[in-house]
Amino acid sequence: MAPTTLTISSKNYSSWSLRGWLLCMMAGLDFDEHVMPVDDPSTRAELLLLSPSFLVPCLTHDGVKVWDTLAIAAYLDEIRPKAGLLPQDARARAHCRAICGEMHSGFANLRSALPMNLKAHYPGFKVWAGAQADIDRVTEIWRECIGNYGGPYLFGELSMADAMYAPVCLRFLTYDVALDPVSRAYCQTMAQWPALQDWIAAAKTEPDELEELDAEF
Amino acid sequence: MAPTTLTISSKNYSSWSLRGWLLCMMAGLDFDEHVMPVDDPSTRAELLLLSPSFLVPCLTHDGVKVWDTLAIAAYLDEIRPKAGLLPQDARARAHCRAICGEMHSGFANLRSALPMNLKAHYPGFKVWAGAQADIDRVTEIWRECIGNYGGPYLFGELSMADAMYAPVCLRFLTYDVALDPVSRAYCQTMAQWPALQDWIAAAKTEPDELEELDAEF
Repeated sequence: MAPTTLTISSKNYSSWSLRGWLLCMMAGLDFDEHVMPVDDPSTRAELLLLSPSFLVPCLTHDGVKVWDTLAIAAYLDEIRPKAGLLPQDARARAHCRAICGEMHSGFANLRSALPMNLKAHYPGFKVWAGAQADIDRVTEIWRECIGNYGGPYLFGELSMADAMYAPVCLRFLTYDVALDPVSRAYCQTMAQWPALQDWIAAAKTEPDELEELDAEF
Repeated sequence: MAPTTLTISSKNYSSWSLRGWLLCMMAGLDFDEHVMPVDDPSTRAELLLLSPSFLVPCLTHDGVKVWDTLAIAAYLDEIRPKAGLLPQDARARAHCRAICGEMHSGFANLRSALPMNLKAHYPGFKVWAGAQADIDRVTEIWRECIGNYGGPYLFGELSMADAMYAPVCLRFLTYDVALDPVSRAYCQTMAQWPALQDWIAAAKTEPDELEELDAEF
């Protein structure tokens, strides 16, 4: 059988790469990382948030090629139904997919105003009002989930929703975003997730050939 | 059992409402339409493409409330597995979800430059270059699907992918977009889909209280 491969781009900057990678880790998949070169135009457009890329993340497994983060999650849930990517209860499962969908298609202001940059830390960062509306909706989603399902993760145990919102937790830490106690505790819980810690450590040692991107943000 | 309800907004302008409605029709669901008032701020923001709404489309069925179009599709596939929302072959199913994901999170230029407006027709419309790149990717997706699976729909028989791309077909007709023969034939096939014809007929008789939106586009 051909090796299982996940195509990603920068560990420091690419939030979609992080989501795909966390989903594969949650599914317990044994996979190789294929890192797209920074000077690839499609990668560059994705990192500069100009457009989503259909190259990153992309999973090749057992002769099946699947791109787009939600499609990867659905595929992983099919091949690893016991991994718990989705809650078992039908109502919670629908809720989980709905908030994953919101993250997938929305929050454009949050993405552009607070881009993921794991090497950076901006204490006292001034959040633009347009991004604040997105932050308010994200934390409303989190409070509702943790209120309904009891935490510490969004649906109790880890699920695909945590992978989808992980980059947002990291952005809130990077940009020192003021949070309610429930949302702050959730970000702290997420920061202890070993897979996420591994990713962050790798991001911090990523070569700095990408620094030119900073100037363009 | 409480009635099944789908919350939508304008049939003339809301492409996400159309997608959710087509998915419910494909699943053979017996549902009531709940139409959001135009002066609702969230509806207004959605219609002006300022932000996705988590109110539209929203399905309430059997005590489960599910919003976001892809989450609605996944829920419908769970409760109506024989409706064929997803292809049966695992590889085609992954492909289908991937291109639905692209539609869900991408094509921002296409959305803003060619907003859905079923009452309008603009022969010779000049397409902005940024939107043309989106059109090129959409038609590449269509040609690949129809080449692989034989047509007339994207995965042979009707699937959720056709519901996701239906508003794009209608935009291409409204804005007189130049298309390759395969893509043109696909748009023509879609225009014959009875459910889509029903929606278009209803859109054309929608009261004109929404016309003020035109001026803001």
